[in-house]
Amino acid sequence: MPSTAGQVICCKAAVAWEAGKPLVIEEVEVAPPQAMEVRLKILFTSLCHTDVYFWEAKGQTPLFPRIFGHEAGGIVESVGEGVTDLKPGDHVLPVFTGECKECRHCKSEESNMCDLLRINTDRGVMLNDGKSRFSIRGQPIYHFVGTSTFSEYTVVHVGCVAKINPAAPLDKVCVLSCGISTGLGATLNVAKPKKGSSVAIFGLGAVGLAAAEGARIAGASRIIGVDLNSNRFDEAKKFGVTEFVNPKDHKKPVQEVIAEMTNGGVDRSVECTGSVNAMISAFECVHDGWGVAVLVGVPNKDDSFKTHPMNVLNERTLKGTFFGNYKPRSDLPSVVEKYMNKELELEKFITHEVPFSEINKAFEYMLSGAGLRCIIRMGA
Amino acid sequence: MPSTAGQVICCKAAVAWEAGKPLVIEEVEVAPPQAMEVRLKILFTSLCHTDVYFWEAKGQTPLFPRIFGHEAGGIVESVGEGVTDLKPGDHVLPVFTGECKECRHCKSEESNMCDLLRINTDRGVMLNDGKSRFSIRGQPIYHFVGTSTFSEYTVVHVGCVAKINPAAPLDKVCVLSCGISTGLGATLNVAKPKKGSSVAIFGLGAVGLAAAEGARIAGASRIIGVDLNSNRFDEAKKFGVTEFVNPKDHKKPVQEVIAEMTNGGVDRSVECTGSVNAMISAFECVHDGWGVAVLVGVPNKDDSFKTHPMNVLNERTLKGTFFGNYKPRSDLPSVVEKYMNKELELEKFITHEVPFSEINKAFEYMLSGAGLRCIIRMGA
Repeated sequence: MPSTAGQVICCKAAVAWEAGKPLVIEEVEVAPPQAMEVRLKILFTSLCHTDVYFWEAKGQTPLFPRIFGHEAGGIVESVGEGVTDLKPGDHVLPVFTGECKECRHCKSEESNMCDLLRINTDRGVMLNDGKSRFSIRGQPIYHFVGTSTFSEYTVVHVGCVAKINPAAPLDKVCVLSCGISTGLGATLNVAKPKKGSSVAIFGLGAVGLAAAEGARIAGASRIIGVDLNSNRFDEAKKFGVTEFVNPKDHKKPVQEVIAEMTNGGVDRSVECTGSVNAMISAFECVHDGWGVAVLVGVPNKDDSFKTHPMNVLNERTLKGTFFGNYKPRSDLPSVVEKYMNKELELEKFITHEVPFSEINKAFEYMLSGAGLRCIIRMGA
Repeated sequence: MPSTAGQVICCKAAVAWEAGKPLVIEEVEVAPPQAMEVRLKILFTSLCHTDVYFWEAKGQTPLFPRIFGHEAGGIVESVGEGVTDLKPGDHVLPVFTGECKECRHCKSEESNMCDLLRINTDRGVMLNDGKSRFSIRGQPIYHFVGTSTFSEYTVVHVGCVAKINPAAPLDKVCVLSCGISTGLGATLNVAKPKKGSSVAIFGLGAVGLAAAEGARIAGASRIIGVDLNSNRFDEAKKFGVTEFVNPKDHKKPVQEVIAEMTNGGVDRSVECTGSVNAMISAFECVHDGWGVAVLVGVPNKDDSFKTHPMNVLNERTLKGTFFGNYKPRSDLPSVVEKYMNKELELEKFITHEVPFSEINKAFEYMLSGAGLRCIIRMGA
C-alpha cells in the first residue's frame, strides 16, 4: 500500500451545506495533519443527538458548510509533527473533547474538562493554524467539535484521540466516543451507587440507558426508569431497569412518587434529559442523609435550577458531569476493555446500521425517535 | 457523697418564661432518667445562635416556659433503664441531635441524620413518655432540642450524649457540642480540601471561623473569608484566613471577584450564613471541573436556591451538611482528641465567660455581635 502520509487525500464525506438540509456525499480533499494532529481513516461512525442539534442549528449562529460526526472508530493514517504516542495503524476512537495532559484540569484527578481541548461547538477550524483541513475545489468546509467523522478521512488533534485495543470491533466500540460513555460514566464515576442500592434514571434515551447499564454493572438492586414515553419501558428492561414511572401517570410530582416507592428516596439519581424540571425532580427524589443526584443532560440557555436550600442542607449532593468524567485518552481504553471482557454490553445500543451512502436515513431514524444508535459503515 | 440516683434533684436552672424576656434563675425539680435516658450534671454551657433564635421565637409557635441551652459539658449523675454504655461519673457532651445506632441513617456510613433523634425544635418533652423531666412546683417546664443545658442538672436521651476523654477540660470542649463541630466538620468531612488548595468561607461568625480552622488544619494555602462586616477580618486571621472580601466593596457579584482572585474559582467553599444569596455565591465561586461547595447555614422557609444548571454541569458539586456530618456518639470523641493533641485550637473561640447567675449577659454579648462564644460557669 503506497503511503499517503504528507499528501492531500481525496475521499468521500457527507457535507451539510445548509442547516436542516439532507447531507450530500461529496469528494473532499483532506490536508495532511499539522503539528500535534493526526489523520484518521474512519471505518464506522454513528449518529448522536448533538450532531442533529447543530445540523438543525435552531437559534444558533449557523456554521456551514460543515462536516458533522463525532462518534466513530478508525485507524491512524498518518501523524503530524510532535505526535509521539500514536502511529499509523493504531486503532482509535476520536473524541469531541480532549485531554492535553498539560493543563490544570488534565493534571487534576478530579476533572476531565481540559482547558485546551474542551468541547467547542462554535469553532469550525483546527487549533494549530485556525484553518480547516477539509476543502472542496478550494472552498474550505468547516470541522465539527474537532472530529468531523462523517468523512472517510478526518484530521483530529492528538489530544482528542484515544488509542484502544486493536482487537476491539470498531463497529461496536465506536459508540463509546460520546453518548454511551457519558451515561455509563455518570453512574460509575460520579453517582457511584453501591451494590444493592436504588437508582433513578431520568430519560431513557441512549445516554439514560447507558446510565442504567452502569447501575446494572454496579449491582444496583432497584433501577427506576423515568420517561414521558411509556413505549420506552419495554426496551429499558434490557438495560437493567426494574421499575418504571411515567410522570404523566401521576398527579403528584414525580419526586414524591419515587420517595413513596423507596421509603424516602432513592440512593442515587442520574438526569439524562436536559429538562430543568427533570433536573429538579432528580435532585429532590434522592434520600436525605446520603442521596446523590448527577446531572448529565444539557439545559437550555435560560433555564434556572431552583430548589429549597433545605433539600441541600439535609445532606443531599448535586453533581454535574461532562463526558461521564472520563479523561478521553487516559480512561476510554479501559471502557473498551469493559466491553471486551463482557462486563459492558454494547450490542443492545445498536439498533440500526446503514451504508455511508444512506447516512440521511440515520438522521431520519433519530428524528422519528426510532431506536438508539445507528452505525454508519464508511466505504460502503 | 449520698447518691441522688432515682430521686428528684432540686437545682438551679435559667428558665425562659416568655419569648425574648430575660431568663430567670429558678429552683427546678429534675426527675430521674427513664428508660434510655441519662441525667447529667452540667458544669459548663455556652450560648449558640440557635438558643437565641428560639428564645426570640419570632414567627414561630412559641413553647414556653422552656429551658434553653445545647452546647455544654458535664458528668453523668445517673442512668435510666437499658443504658449500658454510660455510667455515673463519665465525662460527656450532650448534643442537640442524636445517634440511635439502629436506624438506616445511623447504619449508613454516609449520614448522621438519625431518624429517631434528629434535631426537633418543636418538641419540648422527652421521647419515652412524651413528658418533661423539669418542673417548678408541679408546673412542667419544656425541654429544648433534647438537651436544656441551662440547668445544673438535665435529662437527655442516651443517643444524644457523647462520652469523651475525662482529661479534656470541659470549660473548653463544651463548645464542640454544636457550632464549632458544625463548621469544622463541614470542611474536614464534607468539603475535604486538599493540602495547598484554596477555600472560601462565607460568614465569619463562630461556625464560619470553625470552618476556616478546618481549612487551616487541612493545609489549605489560601483561605478567603467573605463577610459583610469588615471588622471581623482582623480576628479571622487567627483562624487561618489569609484574604478577605467584603461583598459591599465591589460592584460585581462576589463570586466573580473570587473567580478573578483565584484564576477561575476556589477549590472549595463553605457557606455559614444561611443567606440564600450567599449560598448561590458560594456555589458559583468554586472552580469548574473539581469545585465543591458545602452549605451549612440554615435558610429561611421561603428561600429558593437558584442557579443556571450549566454551573452544575461543568462538574461543580453542591453538598449540604448537618452538624458537620459528625455522628454524635461515634465521632465527637475524636474531635475532642484533636483538641487534646493541639491540632484544633479552641481557646480562640472563647471570648467571654460569665457565672450562671449572669447568663443574660451572654445573650447581650450575642445580640450585640460581641465575640464568638461565651462560656457560662454553672454553680457560680
